[in-house]
Amino acid sequence: MKFATQLSTLLMTLVGSTIAFADVAAEVEASNTEFEKAFNSGDAAGVARRYTEDAVLLPPGMPNVVGRDDIEAMWQGFMDSGAQELELKAESVDAYGEAAVETGSFSLSAPGADGDLTPMSGKYLVVWRQDGEGAWRMHQDIWNDDPVE
Amino acid sequence: MKFATQLSTLLMTLVGSTIAFADVAAEVEASNTEFEKAFNSGDAAGVARRYTEDAVLLPPGMPNVVGRDDIEAMWQGFMDSGAQELELKAESVDAYGEAAVETGSFSLSAPGADGDLTPMSGKYLVVWRQDGEGAWRMHQDIWNDDPVE
Repeated sequence: MKFATQLSTLLMTLVGSTIAFADVAAEVEASNTEFEKAFNSGDAAGVARRYTEDAVLLPPGMPNVVGRDDIEAMWQGFMDSGAQELELKAESVDAYGEAAVETGSFSLSAPGADGDLTPMSGKYLVVWRQDGEGAWRMHQDIWNDDPVE
Repeated sequence: MKFATQLSTLLMTLVGSTIAFADVAAEVEASNTEFEKAFNSGDAAGVARRYTEDAVLLPPGMPNVVGRDDIEAMWQGFMDSGAQELELKAESVDAYGEAAVETGSFSLSAPGADGDLTPMSGKYLVVWRQDGEGAWRMHQDIWNDDPVE
């Protein structure tokens, strides 16, 4: 009986961990879908709501962008430049209690040096945090670009 | 007395959290110093030892590099190209139990398009993990470049 109890506890712990992991990964995927929808319809406020209030962006070729308001302005400027058709693809999600780390790849179309819409792609890493209401939001967001083809 | 006990417990928890945080930040700083020393003396194996066995690099302009052996080869190639004088500057460290997230900035000298050594700089985000022996190692490492001046 003791062994059976231990086994049962172990199985419940494993199942619990797996459910917790699946929950975070599913929340991340759901938020990414909302991010894509907001971005591709020009809704910068909707994009910004995916971030924590004090989130930090670390974009290539420009200084860090700190806080949801400045993040909204940054994405608004990027949309205004003509960027569109964003797709996000999560490739790994690691849960660490109140935080989670996602890596993935993105693609979009944006005006190139000649002004023509050009396909672009790259990799990203996002640190997610769960807020007091249980919602997972992006807290740190860094990416870099693949070579232009 | 009950209040005093609660206050004491609260204070001990706060002090404990602060010590745990200081420990991780100090470990990160110490590892970064070893990383700089190894890099700047051409010791790619020493650089690679700063990473977990199954670490992932997400470098700009090239595919992900997975595992300590391939990470060592990547840094060896970068050193062989003439890169030198690496400096790392941690700007934030957030502890999440067995993991921690560091952001910072880097600078180095590397051959530019004309082959001359050129100062370069950028931002990075590293996810650290504590191994079974208590050592903190880099598990995911992503960076991007500031504009070339």
